[in-house]
Amino acid sequence: MGSFKGHALPGSFFLITGLWWAGKQSFLYSARKNKSAGAGRLATRATQRRIEIFEAAVILSFSIIGMLAEQFLAGGPKFHLYDSSSQRWEQLMNWQHSTMYLFFAISGAISLTVHSTDIAPLALDRMLLGLAFFNEGFLFLYHLHGRDMLDILVHTLLLYAVFGQALICFLEVFHRGNILLELLRATLTILQGSWFWQVGFVLYPPSEVKWDMKDHDNAMFVTLCYCWHLAFALLIVSVVYCSVLSCVRSKVRRMPPMEMGLLKPREKEVESEDEIL
Amino acid sequence: MGSFKGHALPGSFFLITGLWWAGKQSFLYSARKNKSAGAGRLATRATQRRIEIFEAAVILSFSIIGMLAEQFLAGGPKFHLYDSSSQRWEQLMNWQHSTMYLFFAISGAISLTVHSTDIAPLALDRMLLGLAFFNEGFLFLYHLHGRDMLDILVHTLLLYAVFGQALICFLEVFHRGNILLELLRATLTILQGSWFWQVGFVLYPPSEVKWDMKDHDNAMFVTLCYCWHLAFALLIVSVVYCSVLSCVRSKVRRMPPMEMGLLKPREKEVESEDEIL
Amino acid sequence: MGSFKGHALPGSFFLITGLWWAGKQSFLYSARKNKSAGAGRLATRATQRRIEIFEAAVILSFSIIGMLAEQFLAGGPKFHLYDSSSQRWEQLMNWQHSTMYLFFAISGAISLTVHSTDIAPLALDRMLLGLAFFNEGFLFLYHLHGRDMLDILVHTLLLYAVFGQALICFLEVFHRGNILLELLRATLTILQGSWFWQVGFVLYPPSEVKWDMKDHDNAMFVTLCYCWHLAFALLIVSVVYCSVLSCVRSKVRRMPPMEMGLLKPREKEVESEDEIL
Amino acid sequence: MGSFKGHALPGSFFLITGLWWAGKQSFLYSARKNKSAGAGRLATRATQRRIEIFEAAVILSFSIIGMLAEQFLAGGPKFHLYDSSSQRWEQLMNWQHSTMYLFFAISGAISLTVHSTDIAPLALDRMLLGLAFFNEGFLFLYHLHGRDMLDILVHTLLLYAVFGQALICFLEVFHRGNILLELLRATLTILQGSWFWQVGFVLYPPSEVKWDMKDHDNAMFVTLCYCWHLAFALLIVSVVYCSVLSCVRSKVRRMPPMEMGLLKPREKEVESEDEIL
Repeated sequence: MGSFKGHALPGSFFLITGLWWAGKQSFLYSARKNKSAGAGRLATRATQRRIEIFEAAVILSFSIIGMLAEQFLAGGPKFHLYDSSSQRWEQLMNWQHSTMYLFFAISGAISLTVHSTDIAPLALDRMLLGLAFFNEGFLFLYHLHGRDMLDILVHTLLLYAVFGQALICFLEVFHRGNILLELLRATLTILQGSWFWQVGFVLYPPSEVKWDMKDHDNAMFVTLCYCWHLAFALLIVSVVYCSVLSCVRSKVRRMPPMEMGLLKPREKEVESEDEIL
Repeated sequence: MGSFKGHALPGSFFLITGLWWAGKQSFLYSARKNKSAGAGRLATRATQRRIEIFEAAVILSFSIIGMLAEQFLAGGPKFHLYDSSSQRWEQLMNWQHSTMYLFFAISGAISLTVHSTDIAPLALDRMLLGLAFFNEGFLFLYHLHGRDMLDILVHTLLLYAVFGQALICFLEVFHRGNILLELLRATLTILQGSWFWQVGFVLYPPSEVKWDMKDHDNAMFVTLCYCWHLAFALLIVSVVYCSVLSCVRSKVRRMPPMEMGLLKPREKEVESEDEIL
Repeated sequence: MGSFKGHALPGSFFLITGLWWAGKQSFLYSARKNKSAGAGRLATRATQRRIEIFEAAVILSFSIIGMLAEQFLAGGPKFHLYDSSSQRWEQLMNWQHSTMYLFFAISGAISLTVHSTDIAPLALDRMLLGLAFFNEGFLFLYHLHGRDMLDILVHTLLLYAVFGQALICFLEVFHRGNILLELLRATLTILQGSWFWQVGFVLYPPSEVKWDMKDHDNAMFVTLCYCWHLAFALLIVSVVYCSVLSCVRSKVRRMPPMEMGLLKPREKEVESEDEIL
Repeated sequence: MGSFKGHALPGSFFLITGLWWAGKQSFLYSARKNKSAGAGRLATRATQRRIEIFEAAVILSFSIIGMLAEQFLAGGPKFHLYDSSSQRWEQLMNWQHSTMYLFFAISGAISLTVHSTDIAPLALDRMLLGLAFFNEGFLFLYHLHGRDMLDILVHTLLLYAVFGQALICFLEVFHRGNILLELLRATLTILQGSWFWQVGFVLYPPSEVKWDMKDHDNAMFVTLCYCWHLAFALLIVSVVYCSVLSCVRSKVRRMPPMEMGLLKPREKEVESEDEIL
């Protein structure tokens, strides 16, 4: 959907996902750090599992909504691929976007399986998430032929975030539970989300004044703007991290101390998922 | 062999190899996981060795068949390199394909040596497999000069799978026995195999209608199609993994419990190859 | 500031920082190595913390000075971004440089927080330093459109040092306390600093004679010159390393032996920061 | 020296170095593997140190010979850089080659220091070797402007070996003593050496017939030829590895068994260098 809404929809998905990841990972990390003070009870293994399953289900739903929107809204191809009367492919742009959503749907579905059963190693969810981001970047890369200079630039900038996310997910396959990688992933996801909105405003400005698609100064400004989005995403993630951390700490302080007799047997149960990896 | 068969032959080789790898690695992984339940008996070290030797022998034969086919079928160069009468190189395309097969033959031969003797570390087989894939990608990269846009594109897309496989093999040198890397390798091998078939259909369509080699819409469709092949390969590998896993589990359940007296001495023997690395 | 001073200012910042890093890391490394001989007392954990906080504060001040200089000196934009009367962006070059300084300021601020509190893992300082270098390289990359050949070349060469530093910082997130990475980082920082001065001399020569911006021989010389700067930076770092090492050794030898009764309890306290990571 | 000899000289250096590395690493590896059988006595720590110092001294001498040859033979610049009368740089090609040799000389000198004293970690020798290879590749990359197609191609192919060696050296900083990396480094060094000879034959053929520098078939043949050089280098390294291994084994078998009383105290001394890393 070459339209403002077609950029705002995935932008919002990524913004929400990024904020969620920043919150979730900060919570799990601070629960792990304050475990000796009893915070383990805040994030038992069962809770973690439930969180992961919920996340996977939401990603799956988002992706299916996105896929259907691309196929049926605003003159989508409605699952027709080839129009044999005119001998032309039908709406390949929408098919490309659908395929991007498809890989996130696969990633969500497999994550759901991994966390609700025990048939595959946990790290599989990150590998498929990485593959979904890689696939998104790959399609964007072959998506830009014959467009205007500024249009190409704003999409190329997007690729830094997208391939960055793919790389971090693959690193997480080997370094699972590294809070820095997790927060960087959240940051890049927020960057991608807010940049989708920015792209929408640049390509389909709500005001009358259009951007000059060939002006070099506009290109320079857009590059700068991308850096500011990154700084903004860093700020958001820091704020989320600090507030979650202080919430957990104040909660831990207000918790009644566990009786010693209960501590030992429960300790086993509250082991974080990452440790049983 | 610039022909349909010249693409179908390696395509079939890679499809079979990919399916075999998906099955083998799933089997070894589930045997390792269910070892305490007695599944170790399914994959003793001797069995593993025999499987690896069988695999290496098959790869070696496939490669030699491919090399001979390139040299002797359909007007191949028959091991002549330079025609001094016309002062021209003989059939360099066939020589390039022969060289690709040569490196897989080297990889097979060395893997045979590694697994039937103990003169070299096990990880050598993966390093040479990675080198063979890298060499294949390297030759494809310098193979495309002066062709049509769509022809270049379909071969460029192949390179993502080929260099991906090379990278994964090199990672396996350091992370041997990581099931995720092994399944990803199988997935990319199936992708490469099915994409070879697709390339054959695009460049040498069996029907009368030829593809327009310069149409941008065809290029977009081909890129999309590549992603669907990847999704399809993921599906195949998941199905193979799940069926092998449930087979092993049901077999383990039906196995008579070992007598305790026998358990200890045999335990030694059944150690998986990966553990003695 | 497209001027000699605009290159000399960051050049000096980087030279000072590089020398400081070479000295600091050599000192901490040799204190760690000679710990059994009592050198641990030279670098207690509290001292290390104070050094890191001092460093972070200096980086933060440098960055703010740089940012203000770009905004207010030599006709800077004075924080105006868009001139709506002429409908043009204001001085985007200065804004780009300010943004580069901004990310170093963020990195300094976060490093200050990490080392003066315990809310985040130590490795965060390296990750944000890496991000600041990456951002610098990224902006330089999109900074070169439409310039002369030699101008592009000298800035491209800079990118090798900048992206090299970013890569090393990211590696240090996983391999903290590796003296080789730390010295390589110091070397590349000195290289970047001295190269900034060289760029100033090439683009704005103090003498009358200007460089021919399109001469291929000049390009070849500049590339060579870059290698000599690297060799020079290696030399400087070696000299700093060796003198710091011999200083620490001679100091250790002159230290009165600690009484055994005191040794055990203090041992705990003098643990290096890297070991408690 | 744009001449046959200017390619044969470094080619021979690299061939000798590659063979030496293949032999040395195979010997150390097999001594380590057969240690329990007494092969440790073949490679005591003192012997290893002497081997490394010998190697570093040879690399240093080779580099200085190469540097002097570039400066003084065949009309070299004799350490003059700028001819102020004609306002031209003097012989920049020779200066580039001298700079390549310079970095190998630095690497040799530092390796000498590292192995004859204990002031720096062992891995420093590999890091500077990696830097020397990287610098060689970097200068070749900016060395090719305005040449013929085939000339550019043969030098570009060289870069695969050169940057491959740089990468492996950097990996060895973190995975020291990995026999696979060491043999791969030897293989690529032999490849680089034999390819230098090949480049000499292509660009300055001894016969009357010159190669057509713009023929696409020649380009295809040259790419193929590069792969065959790689296969040949793999063969050489395998032969060296197998013969060294069988030599060590036969020697170990013929050694008189050590008396048990002597075994324990000497065991300490014969620890391989890699283990005390």
